[in-house]
Amino acid sequence: MRDAGETFIFPDMTKKQLASATLAMRRKLGARVVLTDDASLEAASFDSSRIAVRPAAVIRPTKREQIGVLLKMANKIGVPVTPRGRGTTLMGSAVPIQGGWVLDLMGLDTIRIDPEAGLAHVQAGANVGAIQDAAAGQGWFYPPDPSSKQYCTIGGNIACNAGGMHGGKYGVTRDFVVALKGYLPTGEFVEWGTATRKFAAGFNLRDLWIGSEGMLGVITDAVLRLIPQPAARWTLLTSFADEVSAFRAARALFAARVQPAICEFLDRYSVQCAEQAMKTTIFPGQPGRPVILIELAGSEAELADAKKAVLAWAEANAAGHREAQTRAEAETLWAVRRKCSGAMFQMGDAKLNEDITVPLGAYEDFAVWLEQLRAKSGLAIPTFGHLADGNLHVNIMYHKAVAKECRAAEKAVLALMKKVVALGGAISGEHGIGLAKTPFLRLQHNAAQIGAMQAVKHALDPKGILNPGKMFEVVEVWKAPRVVASFPWDHK
Amino acid sequence: MRDAGETFIFPDMTKKQLASATLAMRRKLGARVVLTDDASLEAASFDSSRIAVRPAAVIRPTKREQIGVLLKMANKIGVPVTPRGRGTTLMGSAVPIQGGWVLDLMGLDTIRIDPEAGLAHVQAGANVGAIQDAAAGQGWFYPPDPSSKQYCTIGGNIACNAGGMHGGKYGVTRDFVVALKGYLPTGEFVEWGTATRKFAAGFNLRDLWIGSEGMLGVITDAVLRLIPQPAARWTLLTSFADEVSAFRAARALFAARVQPAICEFLDRYSVQCAEQAMKTTIFPGQPGRPVILIELAGSEAELADAKKAVLAWAEANAAGHREAQTRAEAETLWAVRRKCSGAMFQMGDAKLNEDITVPLGAYEDFAVWLEQLRAKSGLAIPTFGHLADGNLHVNIMYHKAVAKECRAAEKAVLALMKKVVALGGAISGEHGIGLAKTPFLRLQHNAAQIGAMQAVKHALDPKGILNPGKMFEVVEVWKAPRVVASFPWDHK
Repeated sequence: MRDAGETFIFPDMTKKQLASATLAMRRKLGARVVLTDDASLEAASFDSSRIAVRPAAVIRPTKREQIGVLLKMANKIGVPVTPRGRGTTLMGSAVPIQGGWVLDLMGLDTIRIDPEAGLAHVQAGANVGAIQDAAAGQGWFYPPDPSSKQYCTIGGNIACNAGGMHGGKYGVTRDFVVALKGYLPTGEFVEWGTATRKFAAGFNLRDLWIGSEGMLGVITDAVLRLIPQPAARWTLLTSFADEVSAFRAARALFAARVQPAICEFLDRYSVQCAEQAMKTTIFPGQPGRPVILIELAGSEAELADAKKAVLAWAEANAAGHREAQTRAEAETLWAVRRKCSGAMFQMGDAKLNEDITVPLGAYEDFAVWLEQLRAKSGLAIPTFGHLADGNLHVNIMYHKAVAKECRAAEKAVLALMKKVVALGGAISGEHGIGLAKTPFLRLQHNAAQIGAMQAVKHALDPKGILNPGKMFEVVEVWKAPRVVASFPWDHK
Repeated sequence: MRDAGETFIFPDMTKKQLASATLAMRRKLGARVVLTDDASLEAASFDSSRIAVRPAAVIRPTKREQIGVLLKMANKIGVPVTPRGRGTTLMGSAVPIQGGWVLDLMGLDTIRIDPEAGLAHVQAGANVGAIQDAAAGQGWFYPPDPSSKQYCTIGGNIACNAGGMHGGKYGVTRDFVVALKGYLPTGEFVEWGTATRKFAAGFNLRDLWIGSEGMLGVITDAVLRLIPQPAARWTLLTSFADEVSAFRAARALFAARVQPAICEFLDRYSVQCAEQAMKTTIFPGQPGRPVILIELAGSEAELADAKKAVLAWAEANAAGHREAQTRAEAETLWAVRRKCSGAMFQMGDAKLNEDITVPLGAYEDFAVWLEQLRAKSGLAIPTFGHLADGNLHVNIMYHKAVAKECRAAEKAVLALMKKVVALGGAISGEHGIGLAKTPFLRLQHNAAQIGAMQAVKHALDPKGILNPGKMFEVVEVWKAPRVVASFPWDHK
């Protein structure tokens, strides 16, 4: 693990000055809020990227106002501040890469459902699964569902604009955020939007904050829009001869104006992984074939119509299809989907987990190209994802100890990013940039776009103290030292 | 009408220099693109606010690239550039208040529907009604529907984040914009987002542009998300003893998890206006009573369930209710809704048309307060609006020639804005700030919020050339001279 001092960018600040600033902060906020013990510093030094840099202190506020105090001092004397929630991000967005202070928001975690207005009033540290449960308890539904939802915080979800399986029909985190409260990097309290669906008063800094990975402000509170909880769900598993057929079929489904709540694709490699890991055949009689898992959601009446359309589509397009007869059987299918990611470690001990997007019209081209990439790189590249929003998880597997595989993986990921941009897609659909995708940001954005983003950053954070070193500074993440850690949300 | 020269803010530029810059621009782009004839200058001098300032030229590009050329030169020598579409905004957002050049985007108006992906690829000058029609022709639905939709452009809708009646269930323009192309104020071409639903690569300047009223960039192209066209609609008219009962009933409807596509409220004053104008009783047997017009949309099966819930609600909460038996009858009801705004000119020859929002929980309080404001001001203040998103149109009517009424209107609008902010609402839900709401922006936003917005403006438009003089500079709009003009989209 590197020490903060090694990469510290503020040339006019010595370690001694930082230590004295930390002491001053501790006197202001108290020893229960400003933590400097080894265990706290260690725990805050990395996120799920496992890239680690030790901070000088962890600040864990118990009251919103403490964040203003912290940021005002950090801004005055130039201490880097890295906000974090549970740290489930795979991109390194929560790593305090330039040391300084980590602002841990887990202590601010209230959830209040307004059952009449269909709104959730939450604090940044609130758990996403708990918000969903609280909403469901009142007949409401909060759709965004990153796979780490039982662990991650809404603050992190908003900062990274988290997605999940429901994106195609319902949208992502951004689509459910009505209002935010928080602090500018300079420590001033701000509110973006009101607890009403419409707001057209001034520039929209709410949505600028969403997805800015904690670099433009610290989110403390959010108002989330909820939708009525669907009364019923229906699950269909379909299998296909190959990936190109599966993608072609997906296009036909959407062209038929069907909007499944979930439409998950697993290629043959993902299916085979899951089948080996679970010692079962996902689709009896169709082992090792690519599948699409469809879930419809809505009122019973709504589903009756939609089911017919989906079954007709399956008859015409799929090699096989099987309806889940009970909710328990549907859950088994979803368990397979969740397992496949972890099961991939049979194919390598390291994974470059990408979350690119491809426009619908380019699906088959992409499938053909990806098969060529497998052949050329000699690597296993199991792929699964959310077909309704073009968001595919391409998993480049390799063995860390095999230098040739490392080089091949590095080459493959660059080729992948170039390809998706050439097809009109995005280098990230839901994970963000953080540290891990910094080598590719300039494939997506031209110089004017990068310049505009950096100008906005400088305008809101003139001293560059908030989550510095992310997004714009290129980190060759595959060369960065990693800690060995296991997380409850690992897909293993 | 004031001349541009009078309010010109660039102190180092004389009229002569502006004239020579205009000539240079004309040589570059041609006399068909750079217009300086009287009729063109006159037409581009005002929008629906009727506040007018004559520009030095109107630039009407026929190719996207011409906008880059224009902005590069304007930025270099400091000429104000005011982008505009059809100019239906009531807020003055499209008035070239500091003269210079008007950039008229009406010539870029292509529409292409991708029927498979459910996306509309459009240029800024495309008409919103035409986009809806093109989508509907392919079985898709574009929900945002400002009342001027048969006239206004999508570029203007995006720049102002236009709303409409469908906001509660479906959202506003912002919720349907997937990607944008256009130019930074400095003339560089940029793209924000891709034609895929998910995008998490870099800061979100797409949503920063949306609703920025043409002050942060010029939008040339957009990709819009469409949803499947609802197969059926069902309309119910309900009447109530008074406004407080109507608002209370609306809360009960939403608490029952019903999501009508449209839920329009007309207070007794709006109803009486419309009844006098149309010489009919809107709800036979219930003349002059506040009404709520509900429209459900969805599949036939979906509607069957929802109808039951709405009828049960009406039985329990409304003084009377009446189902539209045919689509033609439903259209008649919607015609009443559209007429009421124009009919208000019986009560005064001038109107301050506000579009505030109020959180659901404050509906009854607001109704009581508004009745007190009527009594105190002595003015007619008919109010209608979109109950599902808290967006109410409060129309303060007065007679221009009666000084006492002018003063009372000015006082009433300030009191209104203070009240909605105190209730946790917004000073604008869908019209934006432009010139007309500038006196109230600081009621909504604290100094840090305004400072952050201005810092962002300065970062992207360092010379302040793009749509200058809007939003942040306070204009006492009721004192501004107006032109006499009538528009096809006037509610008269």
